[in-house]
Amino acid sequence: MVNQVQTVDDTWRRCSKSDSSGASNSGGESSKESSRSSTPVLDTDRSDRLRDKMRRRMESGEHWFSLEFFPPRTSSGAVNLISRFDRMGSGGPLFIDVTWHPAGDPGSDKETSSMMIASTAVNYCGLESILHLTCCNQTKEKITGHLNKAKRLGLKNIMALRGDPVGTDWEEEDEGFNYATDLVKHIRCQFGDYFDICVAGYPTGHPEAQSYDVDLKHLKEKVDAGADFIITQLFFRADTFLKFVRDCRAIGITCPILPGIFPIQGYQSLRQLVKLSKLEVPEEIMQVIEPIKENDAAIRNYGIEHAVSMCRELLESGEVPGLHFYTLNREVATMEVLRQLGLWIEDPRRPLPWAVSAHPKRKVEDVRPIFWASRPKSYIYRTQDWDDFPNGRWGNSSSPAFGELNDYYLFYLKSKSSKDALLKMWGEELTNEKSVYEVFTSYIMAQPNQAGHKVMCLPWNDEPLAPETNLLKDELAKVNRRGVLTINSQPSINGKPSSDSVVGWGPPGGYVFQKAYLEFFTSSENVTALLKVLKKYEPRVNYHIVNVLGENTTNAHDMQPNAVTWGIFPGREIVQPTVVDPVSFMYWKDEAFALWIEQWAKLYEDESPSRMIIKYIHDNYFLVNLVDNDFPLDNCLWQVIDDMFELLDDTSLEQPIAAEQHVGEQLAN
Amino acid sequence: MVNQVQTVDDTWRRCSKSDSSGASNSGGESSKESSRSSTPVLDTDRSDRLRDKMRRRMESGEHWFSLEFFPPRTSSGAVNLISRFDRMGSGGPLFIDVTWHPAGDPGSDKETSSMMIASTAVNYCGLESILHLTCCNQTKEKITGHLNKAKRLGLKNIMALRGDPVGTDWEEEDEGFNYATDLVKHIRCQFGDYFDICVAGYPTGHPEAQSYDVDLKHLKEKVDAGADFIITQLFFRADTFLKFVRDCRAIGITCPILPGIFPIQGYQSLRQLVKLSKLEVPEEIMQVIEPIKENDAAIRNYGIEHAVSMCRELLESGEVPGLHFYTLNREVATMEVLRQLGLWIEDPRRPLPWAVSAHPKRKVEDVRPIFWASRPKSYIYRTQDWDDFPNGRWGNSSSPAFGELNDYYLFYLKSKSSKDALLKMWGEELTNEKSVYEVFTSYIMAQPNQAGHKVMCLPWNDEPLAPETNLLKDELAKVNRRGVLTINSQPSINGKPSSDSVVGWGPPGGYVFQKAYLEFFTSSENVTALLKVLKKYEPRVNYHIVNVLGENTTNAHDMQPNAVTWGIFPGREIVQPTVVDPVSFMYWKDEAFALWIEQWAKLYEDESPSRMIIKYIHDNYFLVNLVDNDFPLDNCLWQVIDDMFELLDDTSLEQPIAAEQHVGEQLAN
Repeated sequence: MVNQVQTVDDTWRRCSKSDSSGASNSGGESSKESSRSSTPVLDTDRSDRLRDKMRRRMESGEHWFSLEFFPPRTSSGAVNLISRFDRMGSGGPLFIDVTWHPAGDPGSDKETSSMMIASTAVNYCGLESILHLTCCNQTKEKITGHLNKAKRLGLKNIMALRGDPVGTDWEEEDEGFNYATDLVKHIRCQFGDYFDICVAGYPTGHPEAQSYDVDLKHLKEKVDAGADFIITQLFFRADTFLKFVRDCRAIGITCPILPGIFPIQGYQSLRQLVKLSKLEVPEEIMQVIEPIKENDAAIRNYGIEHAVSMCRELLESGEVPGLHFYTLNREVATMEVLRQLGLWIEDPRRPLPWAVSAHPKRKVEDVRPIFWASRPKSYIYRTQDWDDFPNGRWGNSSSPAFGELNDYYLFYLKSKSSKDALLKMWGEELTNEKSVYEVFTSYIMAQPNQAGHKVMCLPWNDEPLAPETNLLKDELAKVNRRGVLTINSQPSINGKPSSDSVVGWGPPGGYVFQKAYLEFFTSSENVTALLKVLKKYEPRVNYHIVNVLGENTTNAHDMQPNAVTWGIFPGREIVQPTVVDPVSFMYWKDEAFALWIEQWAKLYEDESPSRMIIKYIHDNYFLVNLVDNDFPLDNCLWQVIDDMFELLDDTSLEQPIAAEQHVGEQLAN
Repeated sequence: MVNQVQTVDDTWRRCSKSDSSGASNSGGESSKESSRSSTPVLDTDRSDRLRDKMRRRMESGEHWFSLEFFPPRTSSGAVNLISRFDRMGSGGPLFIDVTWHPAGDPGSDKETSSMMIASTAVNYCGLESILHLTCCNQTKEKITGHLNKAKRLGLKNIMALRGDPVGTDWEEEDEGFNYATDLVKHIRCQFGDYFDICVAGYPTGHPEAQSYDVDLKHLKEKVDAGADFIITQLFFRADTFLKFVRDCRAIGITCPILPGIFPIQGYQSLRQLVKLSKLEVPEEIMQVIEPIKENDAAIRNYGIEHAVSMCRELLESGEVPGLHFYTLNREVATMEVLRQLGLWIEDPRRPLPWAVSAHPKRKVEDVRPIFWASRPKSYIYRTQDWDDFPNGRWGNSSSPAFGELNDYYLFYLKSKSSKDALLKMWGEELTNEKSVYEVFTSYIMAQPNQAGHKVMCLPWNDEPLAPETNLLKDELAKVNRRGVLTINSQPSINGKPSSDSVVGWGPPGGYVFQKAYLEFFTSSENVTALLKVLKKYEPRVNYHIVNVLGENTTNAHDMQPNAVTWGIFPGREIVQPTVVDPVSFMYWKDEAFALWIEQWAKLYEDESPSRMIIKYIHDNYFLVNLVDNDFPLDNCLWQVIDDMFELLDDTSLEQPIAAEQHVGEQLAN
């Protein structure tokens, strides 16, 4: 709660004092437009820019929404905010924006800096994002440095603000940045048309402005200097905004003007707002709120109701193409308002079966190896230095090396769970390999483990099972119990509509397909039996089997990727977003084995039996992947595993060595 | 017949005098290996070379065959020979070879030159080919020039021969090419490992050699100089060859040695052979042949029987990986021998649904626009200057310009029919547009036209309907009768096995798919109705409608190709060999409209009514293509056309203008 109150205060402060405030806004269009471009990309960096997306939406009359966030204060706050980006991104915002915190080293590489948060939103969460930037008391060099860095990180949109002067004796500097207009001019002068630029508008006039009319004139100057659209400070009545828009149009401002919507979420925060922002809360609102000021839930409900009704009025006016929400980094109220307005996409249409990065360099990317399916951020991180991304086929792009994943504590790859929570889920003390099998099984079944704790994640999967994988739950649980430790799988699909709520992706009217895939760790005894069994399944099943040393057994072509997910769409070339690629499997192998040690073994004391058990698995198990090429038939991979168990059961009559004895033996040495 | 006898004589001459003779061989592997390489191609030019194909076949114990041809004397002979390449190529030779005719300007650009015939086999017929080259009486510069040209044309294999000395007073030259060995050395010296080199072997010794043993030593020298394999002169007994192989192995020749097989085809030709080649026909053969020397059919049957039995003995010996046939440019005997041996592929497996060019530069090519489906040689010709060929997706390769098709009389694009035959098929005199509709309908139905002549080809289709298109025959005939003049179509296919005898292609174990496609010329009246009808089929049907001026109406994305044929195979990325591409459609449009004039209108006198009718169609009709994107459902394109007719029938009650009146009006002007 303390943290929340602080952040609210913080927002008020920003909202009230200068033009760094209410005119901020947020981003990310994950649903309506596919990232796919199969034709010659004429302008790789800046095609499909935010202002063009807005224009297309306005032409089609499709309303949008956007979300504003501020950077977190702590590293764990950053992890939470990024999860929030993923959750709120799924609702289909056109963009999000991230505010600029001059006090928080905003341009630095800190996990909590404005720059890094916006970059993460773009690169790892696939959200079209606007980075705020304030210019007051900054040198041109410093500003240009920030802009260069933003460009390098894949940011394409800037909210140009003056910001709060430091100290009270601020005066205009002759050559400095005195107004947001100066910053807009500077961006256009230094970066041409590269960035889309947003500026702030004040429906009741800027508190420091001479008058409403003078403030309007300043806004016109900002737009004339090269701004592409306007986001307004919050307001309490639709009329206030609509009059403001009319006044803007009257003096020749023609660009989109997006209303800043602030759902009232509490009495205290509203009071603070009144004090700091110099905005006046209308009497009719105060009358409702005063009597219920002790009842947080009642106020929030009122806030939602009020916001919904105001937004309806705005949208019905025909003057408002999209709504911008000041989220205060909270989800509930904004999501509820958007749901009631019918703007929240409940069943997001995925352009591809994995989350598309919004970095312009990755625009054409439409093929990835399946191995990182549950660790997309790791994949994006490891391929961030690639010059070309695979487009259409994996082929020639498999040569660029994967970056090392040296630092497992990169904030966006961190487990959301604490060490304590992980120990509860994965076992305070492991007694043998079977205890590990049970952890996997509990995860698959989403059931409590023996100690009564639900296993919500594994080192290879930081989220509960995907709905798609859930289809395979019973089979997965069965094999995990017997030491086939599955970390990735997909069922076969033979032409389901692209609109299918579980497995669908891509534009409407298409069909999606998959080859069944299964990836797991298992003991060398199992692998020996598996290899015998697999002979019966040639050439239907392709396999790769590798241990931590990289000793590799396969029946697949050395270099040939196997497409395991593809889609056929009206008027398009084939899209094959997921492949099993032999070359990248060897990079994944390193990561997959390392996760045993880095995320699991290290939870335990050095030399402790628990750590030794995990280490034993790391050193001795094999990582196996299987593809059933015959996608129109029933998936045969479960039969393969059954056959393996059957063979093992037969053999074990002769060689009665239970798997767990091996660890015992090793520990005894 | 005269022509045939001449060519036989010619072959004997070549076979008998020098080492330019019997050791020739022929090429083209169209079936066993797919041309697809989706992984980084490390050595674009010379990967998958002939010697590697041989090695793989030997390792797998799969016998192969190859075919030798000599260049034709006339341009119409060239057209016939190229058709023969297509027919005999479908049986699956590992390669063909083309002999070198020093007297026929063999390195020139003439349609009949050895160089151009071999180039056509590689580029347009997709056959792995060996070009013979003789060096006797040639300067090094001349030889190097030939080799450079061969390389540029995509030829990768050379049969290095001495050739016949000119005149009788030939003497060895100190710095010249005196033996095939000199040529082998020269090729390796000038071109390194680029070419695969074949040399000739003489199972009974070269007629000019001092002795069998000396000749063997020369052969060893040729191999040591860098030859990759040996093809032998013809022989009559398996023993002769098997002893020769043993003797070669004994002196350290380890490369493949392929027996030259000559099926006896006539008494006269055999006698001439005896005379010129200094080969001895064994007594047991002469005893059979003499009594039946007047009976050509009997001798041919005996020749086939003898060749089959000898080939069986060779193959069973285990010493013979492949058989090389001296075809004398004839089909029947060789094909029959190969059929009886079980080496002829009756149901050739197509690596892609179109004929793959064997030019090394086009190795990665696996996407083409559908428009040239019936004119693949024209497509290859028009794209011959491309630096990159599309691989995996059409995308970035659509920018290179298509070459102009200025010369419609390029020999490999010529109609196989004479002007007279064409007039019989397409009408000596056309009376109105309906007469044109009837020609199309007769072609579709493979039935005689009103004058009683079967229509075997159209300007857009030089062959009778493909078996696949035959599936659509009834629907096609129906719409052609009413002036929907179809020139290209394919049915929808939802996952048939890649081994399907009609629509299958690609490696075994896969599945092939198609979107239904229909392309036709039709009047502007029809197009007006069609456009109304198509509104009902949005977005299921994509269309492009264009007239000769390039006025274009479409509901497809400007630049986005639509994949209409694709295949899913074990362990592979998706292959999408055929696309409907908006950009290349505009190039195809020029060619498709021009064919009306160049191939049809020009059959008639200037200003004649027949020519005016074709010209009217050319000037006024539209070229339309339709794609039904919903491949799992029943093809809706026939329904689209039916709806169009229905709308026209309704409208025509109001506006009773029959289509043919327009031509009448124009002619009256």
